Amino acid sequence: MIRVSILGGSGYGGGELLRILLGHPAVEVSQVTSRSLAGKPVSRAHPNLRGATPLRFTDPDDLGQCDLLFAALPHGEAARRWDDLAPLAERFIDLSADFRLDDPAIHARHYGEHPRPDLLGRFAYGLAEVNRDAIRDATHVAAGGCNATVSILALAPLYEAGVVHRDRTVVDVKVGSSEGGAQPNEGSHHPIRSGVVRPYKAVGHRHTAEVEAVLSRTGDARVHLSVTAVDVVRGAAALAHVFLTEPLAEKDVWGILRSRYGAEPFVRLVAERSGAFKLPDPKLLAGTNYCDVGFELDPLSDRLVVIAAIDNLVKGSAGQAVQAMNIMMGWDERAGLAFPGLHPV
Amino acid sequence: MIRVSILGGSGYGGGELLRILLGHPAVEVSQVTSRSLAGKPVSRAHPNLRGATPLRFTDPDDLGQCDLLFAALPHGEAARRWDDLAPLAERFIDLSADFRLDDPAIHARHYGEHPRPDLLGRFAYGLAEVNRDAIRDATHVAAGGCNATVSILALAPLYEAGVVHRDRTVVDVKVGSSEGGAQPNEGSHHPIRSGVVRPYKAVGHRHTAEVEAVLSRTGDARVHLSVTAVDVVRGAAALAHVFLTEPLAEKDVWGILRSRYGAEPFVRLVAERSGAFKLPDPKLLAGTNYCDVGFELDPLSDRLVVIAAIDNLVKGSAGQAVQAMNIMMGWDERAGLAFPGLHPV
Amino acid sequence: MIRVSILGGSGYGGGELLRILLGHPAVEVSQVTSRSLAGKPVSRAHPNLRGATPLRFTDPDDLGQCDLLFAALPHGEAARRWDDLAPLAERFIDLSADFRLDDPAIHARHYGEHPRPDLLGRFAYGLAEVNRDAIRDATHVAAGGCNATVSILALAPLYEAGVVHRDRTVVDVKVGSSEGGAQPNEGSHHPIRSGVVRPYKAVGHRHTAEVEAVLSRTGDARVHLSVTAVDVVRGAAALAHVFLTEPLAEKDVWGILRSRYGAEPFVRLVAERSGAFKLPDPKLLAGTNYCDVGFELDPLSDRLVVIAAIDNLVKGSAGQAVQAMNIMMGWDERAGLAFPGLHPV
Amino acid sequence: MIRVSILGGSGYGGGELLRILLGHPAVEVSQVTSRSLAGKPVSRAHPNLRGATPLRFTDPDDLGQCDLLFAALPHGEAARRWDDLAPLAERFIDLSADFRLDDPAIHARHYGEHPRPDLLGRFAYGLAEVNRDAIRDATHVAAGGCNATVSILALAPLYEAGVVHRDRTVVDVKVGSSEGGAQPNEGSHHPIRSGVVRPYKAVGHRHTAEVEAVLSRTGDARVHLSVTAVDVVRGAAALAHVFLTEPLAEKDVWGILRSRYGAEPFVRLVAERSGAFKLPDPKLLAGTNYCDVGFELDPLSDRLVVIAAIDNLVKGSAGQAVQAMNIMMGWDERAGLAFPGLHPV
Repeated sequence: MIRVSILGGSGYGGGELLRILLGHPAVEVSQVTSRSLAGKPVSRAHPNLRGATPLRFTDPDDLGQCDLLFAALPHGEAARRWDDLAPLAERFIDLSADFRLDDPAIHARHYGEHPRPDLLGRFAYGLAEVNRDAIRDATHVAAGGCNATVSILALAPLYEAGVVHRDRTVVDVKVGSSEGGAQPNEGSHHPIRSGVVRPYKAVGHRHTAEVEAVLSRTGDARVHLSVTAVDVVRGAAALAHVFLTEPLAEKDVWGILRSRYGAEPFVRLVAERSGAFKLPDPKLLAGTNYCDVGFELDPLSDRLVVIAAIDNLVKGSAGQAVQAMNIMMGWDERAGLAFPGLHPV
Repeated sequence: MIRVSILGGSGYGGGELLRILLGHPAVEVSQVTSRSLAGKPVSRAHPNLRGATPLRFTDPDDLGQCDLLFAALPHGEAARRWDDLAPLAERFIDLSADFRLDDPAIHARHYGEHPRPDLLGRFAYGLAEVNRDAIRDATHVAAGGCNATVSILALAPLYEAGVVHRDRTVVDVKVGSSEGGAQPNEGSHHPIRSGVVRPYKAVGHRHTAEVEAVLSRTGDARVHLSVTAVDVVRGAAALAHVFLTEPLAEKDVWGILRSRYGAEPFVRLVAERSGAFKLPDPKLLAGTNYCDVGFELDPLSDRLVVIAAIDNLVKGSAGQAVQAMNIMMGWDERAGLAFPGLHPV
Repeated sequence: MIRVSILGGSGYGGGELLRILLGHPAVEVSQVTSRSLAGKPVSRAHPNLRGATPLRFTDPDDLGQCDLLFAALPHGEAARRWDDLAPLAERFIDLSADFRLDDPAIHARHYGEHPRPDLLGRFAYGLAEVNRDAIRDATHVAAGGCNATVSILALAPLYEAGVVHRDRTVVDVKVGSSEGGAQPNEGSHHPIRSGVVRPYKAVGHRHTAEVEAVLSRTGDARVHLSVTAVDVVRGAAALAHVFLTEPLAEKDVWGILRSRYGAEPFVRLVAERSGAFKLPDPKLLAGTNYCDVGFELDPLSDRLVVIAAIDNLVKGSAGQAVQAMNIMMGWDERAGLAFPGLHPV
Repeated sequence: MIRVSILGGSGYGGGELLRILLGHPAVEVSQVTSRSLAGKPVSRAHPNLRGATPLRFTDPDDLGQCDLLFAALPHGEAARRWDDLAPLAERFIDLSADFRLDDPAIHARHYGEHPRPDLLGRFAYGLAEVNRDAIRDATHVAAGGCNATVSILALAPLYEAGVVHRDRTVVDVKVGSSEGGAQPNEGSHHPIRSGVVRPYKAVGHRHTAEVEAVLSRTGDARVHLSVTAVDVVRGAAALAHVFLTEPLAEKDVWGILRSRYGAEPFVRLVAERSGAFKLPDPKLLAGTNYCDVGFELDPLSDRLVVIAAIDNLVKGSAGQAVQAMNIMMGWDERAGLAFPGLHPV
């Protein structure tokens, strides 16, 4: 049993972290911070937790020591406050973008100048499926971005297998409104946000850098990423259009995916012959840590469409972070992450 | 550890039963039947369970003995097949309407002539909050209807306290599309069903009889129930407009609700001063066994509006049934039902 | 051809007014004001009007004279600025709550002290179906509230016919998010607002006063109104639970409704034997000025459920105002209001 | 004033055709056929038209002569019945896929063997923006497919300008549930269809052939099309990822789009600096004949993302057909198509 705290616990990522950790068999949640809600029950921000815990928010200035500190702060905050945070815990898992990229120039292009470039490179990228060994040995982890996660999980097997043009891939991601965070704004106003098919980031999405960084481990890689907002709250789904360097049969693609993901506890290969859920759909995944992956092969061209779906707040954030904790601590990787999801919902 | 089977496991109620039972610490799921899907993995009907279980559907004719049999068949089926079912298990929990009403005349009014009126009265009504003692002693339980459940939980404390006009209550229930079951039809076609505020049963809803039967234990009771379909998949929410026989202050109503529900593990009293979730909303409850109950007192009249919300497939069906099983077996009433729900979702 | 202007044209009511007036055969839109958007194209606030008009917002201080002035200001503004507004036009139609109620005490109870009680009584209530003659003779009109409109249209025939208990009626209204206006807030944030069944005003809704004022013309009347927010953008639907003083057959109710509404251009009686739209549903009415009215008679009690549905922004606001203008000007009442609505949508 | 009839008037395309034609100033609707609903009011299938017309469905065997016949039959029907249909009217506009493709081999690949290959080539493709001159001279028109329409309108200017790689384009289309037609099925069941991000046709979509046929007029063209179903009823939106053969600045792209579409009555160029609707979104377009087109240029690569949005039932079907009729008849191209759309909705 270890004692963990959550810094920045009033947002959606912090809330999911708290929900998962409250059900985790080896963890006791020590403190959850929120400056504006200090002293209030955590259910004030997370009404699903009414009756589930007597915890109240702590002022971040009163954050004490713990065994492992999760941070779910706005981008830039954790890096700026690093000297205060570092002494609080031996282990640290960050959910922001502050420590995901090792290259300060690439970080700067997407997020502005990094306040503490000296810290870059000290964190293991938190996506277990592409970084398990490093996470196992790490004390500091940076959980990946949601759209990066779903894109990487769609693409990694093909790039690693060396069967695709490494610079032609188009990744078209559809996302829910929870990606925008808990702060209301003009675009999130229900009459405006309901029923949209809104090109949210047609070009220049910041998660591109993470995807390219991971895929480039096996050779230079380029992805052309776009993100469109659709009328769901949770969920991120990627259609990754990749172009094969040589013809592959369906069974070849299956082979690549199975050998890559067969042993992964949270990747499910989904491609049935028929049915409404024959391919991955985030609708099935709300609350779960699964990434479902499937594909279709274009019979008339060299295109392969790989489809991946996640819950952006779980596998795309808090669940990924807990999975990383489990690995780091040497626990069953699935601990606390057993929720199978609801159907229909 | 007991062995349970599910008869009629391909529908939405059966699916939720299966999801909950797979996570139940004291239960092993033995068989799940479906005639049309016999031999297929249960995930064919319940894609959320992919990877969660190797179970396959059994033909109902191959159903063997078990310790406890759940039936989630269409109305009328369990009663008709009773002589075949009775020998299969000592304990039996039915999710249909077959055994909820004790009075054959009232049953006939809503569901047609009962095929086995001799069986009426042998089943304990399964809603723990109003029938816990009988359930504890029972071997046969009939889980209540979803709209009846949410209405009863809103109304029972006030009727029992004797503070309301017993024949003037109007209960206006809003429900999601999963109440209609898994079979597609003209009204459930997405272009037609999406965005509706559709008076589904403005009068004559069959669950009225259950509500009146329970409330009448403390004196003749009448409720005027209407059900409207709205654009959610899960959820049933009741606005129960009751009229007070004498003026009550807010704290009086709180007192009545607290003394009635204070010890209930699955009823939460919700009435905050502000916030988007200051009153019960089924949006928070998908997948959970909670019934949230709150109220507002009309300062200008003798009306009290009690609001209750549930997940129709859980507290309104499968979860209620599992709660009843836990009571019947003498287990922790919360076993298998700990999921707190998601936010936002 | 008359020249009309819209004061307060950047909100949802103002936008619908503009859309309708741009298609009106006898009207030229002269000015549309918005302080914050002065100088910008009207499509900045109303993107549906891109390409439909070259109009730009005017600063309200630059509002000139016109033949008829519509005001769609926040509650209280028009009354406070009345001395400036009155000279601008001979005719005036207000969409706020400022001039709907004649009794200053009742106004004060719901909206606070009226800044200009001397003006009360000078405006004709704008709902044509209950006030056509007064509107015809008026120069000043106050369009009714959306929830009041749908409730009144459900109830007026029965109260006028004298067949119901005048103090027992419960009106349970379900509404869309556009009722909350164009300003984002915590409760309108999409992750929070999506999928709700949220008791928005279980008691004390301000529109109650309008409903009771209109119904009381034929004798003291009381309604018990509640409003619940559901997951649509447009639409208000009322289930009006009324209790009959003597038994009525279906054909009697039909008779009452037909004789009351048979000649109304914007009330449609809807009660078919089957089909997904056998009873009124606001889903069909987005963009239209129709109020659909239907009913079901409870065979087991003295309850009659009258169902009415409107588009809250059209019949419940801007369309009602244009209909009033048409009457006031002696034009075809349907001018500019012909849009039949979309299906499916 | 000409007399038109609609063959196959009970589906969604037929319903929109009817709605538009009832408001068309130069057209009288003579007959609307439906075999299963013959004799019934058209509002039985199209409840939005209640009160708008006294028309009843005619049995298709009773279809008489008219000036112009619209056919909205299932794919294959019009071709098979051609010898019966041809004598009924001098002018004919078909909404199915039967006559869109001139090449029988390509038709066969997507739709099976054409029953009457001799008819191919006799119909003008109905998308005015790419075929206006041919439509003007035609008596027979085949309206384009919805996903083809939105894709072509996104891509045609760039392919015609010769600035893109003609075989690398990926078109990722998101569509509403009305694309699936009026027939309920497993996948359209609300609990299943609600909230999806479902890869509907990741590869092999039949509309690909239309897109390539049109784009190939200026040189061989290839598009990689995928269609994903999202939670809206109406709407199709394309993200067309094209790759430039030489660098272009934003103003160059604007120049290409403006010179191509500047005079088009139903194409609006939309690319504002900010705001929730700065890029095309079908949410704004329900009921309208507009195609909104915008773009973003990737600063870090040679990718240009062109975004187009339509109402699949209007610009993508019935509205396109009426626009073609207007051209064919020499009328104002906008006649009957003035509805600007609703906001918010």
